[in-house]
This record gives sequence, structure tokens and C-alpha cells, in this order.
Amino acid sequence: MYNFTSVNDVQDLSAMVNLGLQLKKSPNAFRELGKYKTIGLLFFNSSLRTRLSTQKAAQQLGMDVMVMNVGADSWQLEMTEGVIMNGDKAEHVAEAAAVIGQYCDIVGVRSFPGLVDRNYDYSEQVLNQFIKYTGKPIVSLESATRHPLQSLTDLITIEEHKKTARPKVVLTWAPHVKALPQCVPNSFAEWMNRADVDFTIAHPEGYELAPEFSGNARITHDPKAAFIGADFIYAKNWSSYKDYGKILNSDPAWMVTKEKMDLTNNAKFMHCLPVRRNVVVEDAVIDSENSIVIQQAGNRVWAAQAVLKTILESL
Amino acid sequence: MYNFTSVNDVQDLSAMVNLGLQLKKSPNAFRELGKYKTIGLLFFNSSLRTRLSTQKAAQQLGMDVMVMNVGADSWQLEMTEGVIMNGDKAEHVAEAAAVIGQYCDIVGVRSFPGLVDRNYDYSEQVLNQFIKYTGKPIVSLESATRHPLQSLTDLITIEEHKKTARPKVVLTWAPHVKALPQCVPNSFAEWMNRADVDFTIAHPEGYELAPEFSGNARITHDPKAAFIGADFIYAKNWSSYKDYGKILNSDPAWMVTKEKMDLTNNAKFMHCLPVRRNVVVEDAVIDSENSIVIQQAGNRVWAAQAVLKTILESL
Amino acid sequence: MYNFTSVNDVQDLSAMVNLGLQLKKSPNAFRELGKYKTIGLLFFNSSLRTRLSTQKAAQQLGMDVMVMNVGADSWQLEMTEGVIMNGDKAEHVAEAAAVIGQYCDIVGVRSFPGLVDRNYDYSEQVLNQFIKYTGKPIVSLESATRHPLQSLTDLITIEEHKKTARPKVVLTWAPHVKALPQCVPNSFAEWMNRADVDFTIAHPEGYELAPEFSGNARITHDPKAAFIGADFIYAKNWSSYKDYGKILNSDPAWMVTKEKMDLTNNAKFMHCLPVRRNVVVEDAVIDSENSIVIQQAGNRVWAAQAVLKTILESL
Repeated sequence: MYNFTSVNDVQDLSAMVNLGLQLKKSPNAFRELGKYKTIGLLFFNSSLRTRLSTQKAAQQLGMDVMVMNVGADSWQLEMTEGVIMNGDKAEHVAEAAAVIGQYCDIVGVRSFPGLVDRNYDYSEQVLNQFIKYTGKPIVSLESATRHPLQSLTDLITIEEHKKTARPKVVLTWAPHVKALPQCVPNSFAEWMNRADVDFTIAHPEGYELAPEFSGNARITHDPKAAFIGADFIYAKNWSSYKDYGKILNSDPAWMVTKEKMDLTNNAKFMHCLPVRRNVVVEDAVIDSENSIVIQQAGNRVWAAQAVLKTILESL
Repeated sequence: MYNFTSVNDVQDLSAMVNLGLQLKKSPNAFRELGKYKTIGLLFFNSSLRTRLSTQKAAQQLGMDVMVMNVGADSWQLEMTEGVIMNGDKAEHVAEAAAVIGQYCDIVGVRSFPGLVDRNYDYSEQVLNQFIKYTGKPIVSLESATRHPLQSLTDLITIEEHKKTARPKVVLTWAPHVKALPQCVPNSFAEWMNRADVDFTIAHPEGYELAPEFSGNARITHDPKAAFIGADFIYAKNWSSYKDYGKILNSDPAWMVTKEKMDLTNNAKFMHCLPVRRNVVVEDAVIDSENSIVIQQAGNRVWAAQAVLKTILESL
Repeated sequence: MYNFTSVNDVQDLSAMVNLGLQLKKSPNAFRELGKYKTIGLLFFNSSLRTRLSTQKAAQQLGMDVMVMNVGADSWQLEMTEGVIMNGDKAEHVAEAAAVIGQYCDIVGVRSFPGLVDRNYDYSEQVLNQFIKYTGKPIVSLESATRHPLQSLTDLITIEEHKKTARPKVVLTWAPHVKALPQCVPNSFAEWMNRADVDFTIAHPEGYELAPEFSGNARITHDPKAAFIGADFIYAKNWSSYKDYGKILNSDPAWMVTKEKMDLTNNAKFMHCLPVRRNVVVEDAVIDSENSIVIQQAGNRVWAAQAVLKTILESL
């Protein structure tokens, strides 16, 4: 594996999951592997879990870590080819990415979608420009359409907590006060579609994900039906893909409640965080013993470390 | 010692001071102790000395360090329980703190008071929520009411510079153009009250500290009287506790001047910094040989290292 | 060498260049040299290359690195002596610099000019106050009038790519939409004037550099003439020194084009970056095989490492 930007970069999904679980048992077993190697973590947007877990994963592989908030620490970057740069962007990604590639052995990039122009967001211009120009392996720290480190984490977490060989996993849309990206549900769907799980997506009409992500997943528009017999409830808000970036629904019936969790097969509750309490999920659910959101977030380290270890070995 | 948030967390004050002085002589003697351990330093507010000295202390103990400016780097946090999170706070401290606890072995938190609602500030909600939810030792990097790393530093510095067994230590209020927290004077007072010093607080009327902090300290409202015979003059502005967060006095007679220092027993001048020159203290004093503010700030490293070493040993 | 703020701090220019080239071959040969030493990198202004390359250079020498954005991370600093600090500056550089000196073995400082008051900028107050007060070696990460780490990089890059013993090097002014500092051209000129090269500066009238920087360089006001027979074209915009901080010219004839590059002796194209494409230089030039801007930026690591190694050995 060279780049890590989607599930398609992973040859053997279950080997990658097992590597994460192995690293969780022996976090420092490979401190020599990344010795004298440098990772640069570039944030065009805010980050808590990704920032800290990837930094920790790299340190546990012995790497030197450099973190940069693009924009705040350095310059605004021009992403488009061939333009006359007489506006407010001081540097072109062609130079910025290539220069960062001079200083780093692996580069992580976080860049959210604007949620205004669907074609632009789904072209993954920022991520692709970094892939094009950096000359080094690129790890997505969440891009305009995907969050693969989160999805690998989710799969590791499901593997750890599942009680049947092929658990019933439900991705359920939930309300939110802000228009959010489709990255997490897109990624979760494409990973679950490749994993050995029984996968359902529940969302209000108008919230269909792009077909290349939802794939053959079972779809329901009933906020309760999918909960019946579920082993894992994965909640997440996203804005509409069809009516791009819009909030079409705020029906509290889509909030994850104790009442709905009682329909499940004693399901574990998952969320990528940050989560709006009592909007996306009731306190009674996220504070219950069945909530594994903290362990899930903790697993971000092992997902990142599995990815970085695999890339380091390919260098 | 598990948490370090006030003098009450320290069992043996003089042992802790001596540990700081010992580490100052052998900064790298315990580079193995923190190996493969991670400290997260979270800043809700600006920091220079605390940021750099704690980072350095942790590095000298061999720890991996992750620094995060909460708000700028990540999300605004909701601190209150049970709320419907439909406002501008994207994440609850219950999740944020617990997640950070997954990535760190020790967590440092800086969070200043708002100086608007005394009950709120003195409830230490932010610090206490991190203690409640992080699941790892919490080190206060200055909270709403205390700055214990500063006070331990101050005691180490007094120990280094004292010429008599029981020196006369004066905390003197001084004017300032902005309303400042009571953290440093609160903390200094509670540490001096437990140390073996003759302790006086000088401040204008209306600037009484909360009784749990001033304790049995001698109080004077005369800007000169306390200087007579003092061995250490510790200057600091604070806003009123009674008339909460207000500036009640700007009388330049409270500035520390050469003239007033001449009343002392050749006293050392101390301040936690940052300090407003020629508002809090005359250039002639802070630039004099009796000023030990730089050595004092330098000692921040050894206070932090003594605290971190003690916590690491308890893990 | 103790401080590194201009070419005048370097005793033997060609030894320093050779050290950089040697470190490029053996980046980790001196990992023990900086062990248990700390470098503080202070940024009053944005930085990408300097931030990352200096950090990497220090890490490759085994140093602990602390990076701080002054202003964003900590406090606004007062630079003037003797003032009554009742404005918006919370701390005087006299304390801030001295305290940072307590925590660091070497301190790097980036502080751009304001481009309003020439006497102030050219007095290098910020840099000089850090030299005065820090008590530790100061490395300029670009100051109000110079960018010596860039110039050493440039000389290393010219040494690597030159095909004749004494190449013809042309510094050519180029248009820009913003008023930029004279730091890079000032520094480049004073380094080239000391190096064994045939040096010409091309700029429109009114863009004369300060005489102490341009020295005996050949000057031309023709945007094409200097290109004839050149081995290296070094493009850079700067604002006027005479009519201080002003933009006097935006003639696109000064842009570096393929047509002008065809006049050269197959010259390499250099720029310190960030660069405005199709304003300063045509895509056709910067994307050509003769463009060495990325290799040049990559060499920032070896320049910084040569400087830090030399300073570390002098401690």
C-alpha cells in the first residue's frame, strides 16, 4: 500500500483489521520501523481525534512528527491549474505539496468539502493535487468525500465487539443543526459493503448517498425499522447529496433513543464523534454500557498505526 | 500523587520542592521514566511559560508530547451536563476528555476564568469535567481559580534564594489596565500558608481574596507598610473577588518602585510574568540585581518536571 | 558561530556550503550532537518551508523542538524600552526573550517588516531585542531585512547545479500584487556579493536595494538584458526601498517567461517560494526541467542543519 485514501487502497481488509488489533496489544513493537522517518500532518480544518491519534500512532512507530495548520501557520493555497495568481492565494499546491514532500516521508492531509459545489467536492481536488504533487505517500485524514481512517477504526471496533460471525450493522442518519459532509457515511458504507457484515442504511428520503458509496446496502426510510435485531447502531448526520449540502429534515424521530435501542439485539452504539448530545443521540444511550464511542475513538490510534506501518514497509 | 490541581494534592511540600531542585541539577536523569508515555497539553487560553516549560519538562522525562490549542485546532466544547446541544458547541467534554484520555497517559489543561460569573468560575467546571471524564491524571496548567505549577515554582525559587530559615514573604497587589484572574494570588497564598514562611498580603480595600485562599495570612491595606523588612516582594495584579472581576483601584502608589524596595531587607523581586512594566513594577526594580523574575520563570521547568515525575511514578 | 542573522556571521562561506552538502548525504550522522538540547522556533509570521525544514534539521541533529506562534499561542510583545505598558501589549520582549532563553539552547525567530517605517524596519528591533535579551544563540528565520537561511540554501543550490566555476547569477525583480519585504533580495545580494559568482541585479527604476546590500553588484533596469548568457535566474518581487514599501511598477515585461529564459545559457530557474504563478513567473518556466525551485526548497533542510550543527558545536 502506497497511498491510503479509500477502502480501495487496502488489498486485504481483514489482514489490516488484524494488524490494528495486534498493534493494540504491542503498541511499541515497531519503534524502530519509522526511525529517522518524518510524517507531516497538514490540517486545512479542525481536528481532535485525527490530530492526536495519528500523531501518537506515528510516534509509536518511532517517526518524527510535524503538524501544520495550513492557513493559520502558513499560506492559503491555490488548487487550480493554469490560473493567474493575482488573488488572495499566495502559493500554488504544485509548489507547496512538492516542497512538503521534500521534508516528509509520508504526508497526511485533512481537507473538508465546501458543501456548495458537489462536482468540485466530489472531484477531491485538494487530495488529488497532493497525490499528484507531493511525490510521497498520502494518507487521507478526512477528505471531501471520505474518512477512511475512521472507517478502518470502525471495522476494528466491530471486529472487537461482535458476538456473531456476521453481525447486523445499521448506519442510521440522525438530525443535526448544521449541514455536515457525507464523508463518514460514504466511507462507512463502502467499508461495510466490503466487510463480512449484514449492512443497512436508514435515512429520510432525500438523504440518499451517492450510489458508488451506498452500493448494494439495504436502504430504509423508517427511523425505527432498521433497529430491530441490530447488533451495531452507527449514528451519523449528513447533509443531502441530492440537494447538495442542504438540510432537508430535522425530525427528532431520527434521534437515537433508548426506546429505539430497545428494539435491537442489545446493540452496541457507535459514533465517530464529535456528537451533539440530545440532538443526534440521547444522553441515556451514549451514557449507557452499550455505548462504545470512547473505545471506538481510542481505536483510531491502531487504525492509523496499521496504515502507517503498512506504508512504511512499502517504502 | 495522581492529579495536580492545588497544594492539597501534594503530601510533602518540602519533598516536592527538593525534588525540583534535584531535577534542576540532573535534568536528564530520568529520561527512561516517561519512555513510551504520552502527555497531552490542552490550551483553552494563551500560554508562553507554561506551554514551553511543561513541554520541556515532559521531554526531559522522555515522554512524547502532544500540544493542542482547543478551539483553534479542534472544536468548541460543551461543559454542561444534560443540555440539548443545538448551539455552537460541537462536542461535549464528556466525549472530548474521555477520548483524549484514550491517547494520553497524563493530560494538562489550561482554562482561564471568564470573570463574569463568580460561582461558575469558582466551581472550576472545566477542570473538574476533565478530572471526571478523562480517566487519566490531570495537571492544572492554570485553571479558573488556581495556578499551582506557578506556586510550586515560586516556593522552589524562594527556597533557592532565601537567606533566613523563615523569610518574610509579601504578596503585593499592583495596578493593571485589564481585569485579571485571581488564580496566581489565590494559589500563591494557599501555598505560602502551608510553607514555612512569614506571609503577608498587601492590597487595597475591596481586593480581599476568597477566605479559603487568604487563610490566616497577615493582611494590610497600606501600599508601603508590608515592604518594611521583607525578604521577598511578590507582585501581582488581580481583579476584585468581592465585586467580581471588577477593577476598583488604579492608584500608582501600589506600583512596585525602587523607593518602596528600599524599605525591604534587600528583598528579591518576584513576579509570575507576563508583567506590565512601569504599571505593575518600575523598570528600575525589574532590571535591578534583586529581580529574580527570569530565574523564577526558568524554575517552571523543574516544578513541572517534579510534578510529572511524581505522577509517572504513581501510574 | 554563535548567532546566525546574516552572511557576516559566517567565517568561511564555502566551508558552510560544503557542510550543507555533506549533511545532505548523511542526514543522521550527527543525531547525538543535539541530544538533550532544545530549540525554540518562534513565529511572529506565517511560515511553511522555514517552519518544517528547520524543525526537521533540528530533529535530525537529535534536538528537542518546540514551535510557538507568538501572538496566536501566547502574548503580544512590547519591543520598545522604557515605555509605560498600559496598551495592548501584555509582555515586554525583555522578559519573554529571557524566559525563552531559560528553556532553549538555541532560539529561532521569524519577524517580518511592517513596510511602513523604513528606519524602524531596518533597525531590526525585534531580532536585536531577542539577541540582547535571550542569552542564547539566535537564528534568524527571516527578519525585517534579511533571510539568511534562504540565502545559504540558494548558495548550496547554485553550488550543486553550476556547470562553470564562476556562474553568471541574475537576481531579477518580478511583479506582484502585494507589497513584499526586501529581505530575500537583500540577503541574496549580500551572499552573492561574497560568493565566487558573476552577479547582476535587474529591476525597474525605483527598486534599488539599500546600498549596503546591493554592494558592487552590476545593476540593470532592462527586464531582458541581464538574461543573456545567465546560468541562474533568481526571480523575486520586492517593494521599493526608496519609496518605502510602495509598489511602483507592475509591468508584466518583468515576469519571467519562456521567451526570456531562451536568452540565457540554459539557465536554471530559482525562486525562494511561495511564488505567484503567471504573475512572477510563467507556468511554462516553473514547470520546465530547468526549474529547480523544489530542489532549492528541499535544500532548506541542509542549510538549517549546517547552521544548527555549527552553533551546537560552539556551545
